[in-house]
Amino acid sequence: TRGKEWAQMVSPRVKPLNILGLGYSVGTDGQVLTGEIVVVKTFEELANRSQEVKGKFVVYNFDFKGYGESVKYRGSGASEAAKYGAIGALVRSVTPFSINSPHTGMQSYKSGVPKIPAVSITVEDAELFGRLAARGVKVNVSLYMEASMADREGTSRNTVSEITGTDKPNEVVLVSGHLDSWDVGQGAMDDGGGAFISWRALSVIKKLGLKPKRTMRSVLWTGEEMGLIGVQAYAKQHAGELNRMSIAMESDIGTFTPLGITFSGTNSTAQCIVNEILQSLNTINATKLTLNEEGSDIDYLMAAGVPGSSLDNAHETYFYYHHSNGDTMTVEDSHQLDLCTAVWAATSYAFAALDDLLPR
Amino acid sequence: TRGKEWAQMVSPRVKPLNILGLGYSVGTDGQVLTGEIVVVKTFEELANRSQEVKGKFVVYNFDFKGYGESVKYRGSGASEAAKYGAIGALVRSVTPFSINSPHTGMQSYKSGVPKIPAVSITVEDAELFGRLAARGVKVNVSLYMEASMADREGTSRNTVSEITGTDKPNEVVLVSGHLDSWDVGQGAMDDGGGAFISWRALSVIKKLGLKPKRTMRSVLWTGEEMGLIGVQAYAKQHAGELNRMSIAMESDIGTFTPLGITFSGTNSTAQCIVNEILQSLNTINATKLTLNEEGSDIDYLMAAGVPGSSLDNAHETYFYYHHSNGDTMTVEDSHQLDLCTAVWAATSYAFAALDDLLPR
Repeated sequence: TRGKEWAQMVSPRVKPLNILGLGYSVGTDGQVLTGEIVVVKTFEELANRSQEVKGKFVVYNFDFKGYGESVKYRGSGASEAAKYGAIGALVRSVTPFSINSPHTGMQSYKSGVPKIPAVSITVEDAELFGRLAARGVKVNVSLYMEASMADREGTSRNTVSEITGTDKPNEVVLVSGHLDSWDVGQGAMDDGGGAFISWRALSVIKKLGLKPKRTMRSVLWTGEEMGLIGVQAYAKQHAGELNRMSIAMESDIGTFTPLGITFSGTNSTAQCIVNEILQSLNTINATKLTLNEEGSDIDYLMAAGVPGSSLDNAHETYFYYHHSNGDTMTVEDSHQLDLCTAVWAATSYAFAALDDLLPR
Repeated sequence: TRGKEWAQMVSPRVKPLNILGLGYSVGTDGQVLTGEIVVVKTFEELANRSQEVKGKFVVYNFDFKGYGESVKYRGSGASEAAKYGAIGALVRSVTPFSINSPHTGMQSYKSGVPKIPAVSITVEDAELFGRLAARGVKVNVSLYMEASMADREGTSRNTVSEITGTDKPNEVVLVSGHLDSWDVGQGAMDDGGGAFISWRALSVIKKLGLKPKRTMRSVLWTGEEMGLIGVQAYAKQHAGELNRMSIAMESDIGTFTPLGITFSGTNSTAQCIVNEILQSLNTINATKLTLNEEGSDIDYLMAAGVPGSSLDNAHETYFYYHHSNGDTMTVEDSHQLDLCTAVWAATSYAFAALDDLLPR
């Protein structure tokens, strides 16, 4: 439970900080935690300056070089700082753009290291701290967080629907998105849109009266944000079926104007087939094939040998909203969602209609 | 004083609203104000549905069609709603883009109408309310605001510096920006950058050892946000000098990459001169002359017959940050500021070096 949380710079002047506690973070135990900050750009700098950290907050003010490069500070910044005795981690939000907007997300504690509170701060505040530190100004920050983990387990389920194949009911084409989201915003782009088109694709195919040869299955994963929990349970339960899964498709990078799809398969015949299928999307300008891009949930299925595919779309602004209070229905555009649905329905149906499984 | 302020949707579900009280707004008198909302898009719709408003909050969820078109809801939305008995006004932030970011700014109460609290809400929350209203869902909101006006007057001054002209010391070329800003953010784009380059232009000219023929004066206005108070005092005090003011320049639309300047003068010789002067900025690609654009503070000087000019720059994102917590140093780019300074210094110096005052 997030509970109440707030932070402010208390010196050299009082300034409220717009924060979001990170996933799995501990709270401040009913206390207001106050201390000086140490600002670092990288884990290497932190290691070099480890003597300065004890009893202080570590601020990660990394240079943003893409989500993949930067997300490690969110993921393990707290434990890396705690190793040297820090009392908390203040992590620059992982986004190329900000209007004083903090972005939450999952972080993990390393075993054997004290658990210290971990929060995201805005790009603006991280840069402010960076400027003050560069000038040698001592900065003190106060933090209060009620974050707690409920002491009980619950059950959460993947949501599965399917159209059974006419000729090869035991072979599967899977389309998917994830149904869970963070508590901030509405989880529209991450991943309401992806879940929507993955449900809607099958709905459209059914309404059109199309009868796929293979079974088409829509899976709305649970527990993606908490560490791909839903897909792990699925992969275990369906282990015997994965060699008959032709392709696993996932939409989890927004549902802006679609450009095409990505494909993980290295077999050149399979690549040709995917490319050929995409030509049918010429009328909506979504014929782009990108190779070797990664998914998120489907990584687990690809690791088991299933070819994977993600929706490719004009997602330049995806990380502006990602895991923030800005990820709301306002960002979704109904026409763009329709186009994404079309890509998802047309390509998945074509995969289900092939004579053979995609060659691996 | 802003004091504490918060709002939340209390039904159909609890959702915190990210708000900013508007300038001159009254508070809620120590109480939490709770009531239903009525969502309108325009003042016309409000008038047509005036019977529904009594005892409720009015939400203005206008279609954003540019700042000039939309700012009226911020400026007089409270009094328009109070006329029909509303208890408060929740005004969509005046911006084309949002990441859950509210924007404050000045609002004015009409005399003879009760003063009700006026706050800005985010684009996302305004659209949420719009969607719920369209579906016929009753929405209740709670609002708490400590906003108050201090019961005393103070003195605030324009900051003026000048280089006295060698040949025509009584003729003036004025460059300006305003020094005051709202309490949120750092007032970097509105109008720290404009104030900076207006001070810096004269500093550069002095450092270069240039001796302008006319007097060059830098004015950093006070009280622009509160209703152009500084320039009114200036115009009054300098009334006798305005016929000898060659041009009044103002930068108040951001200090992004400069494109050129705007010019209000209708005299075609004057327009030719300005255009010719701008050609000297060819090396930094800032030669664009735009006619008849308005300023803000300089409107007062233009009304007295002084030709006016504003900095023209790539300000597409200016209103993303304007009057929000996002208007910080993070938005300023030192190279862009240098280029803006160059435009300001070069053009103002050229105006000061002309044989004659700009023809009116």
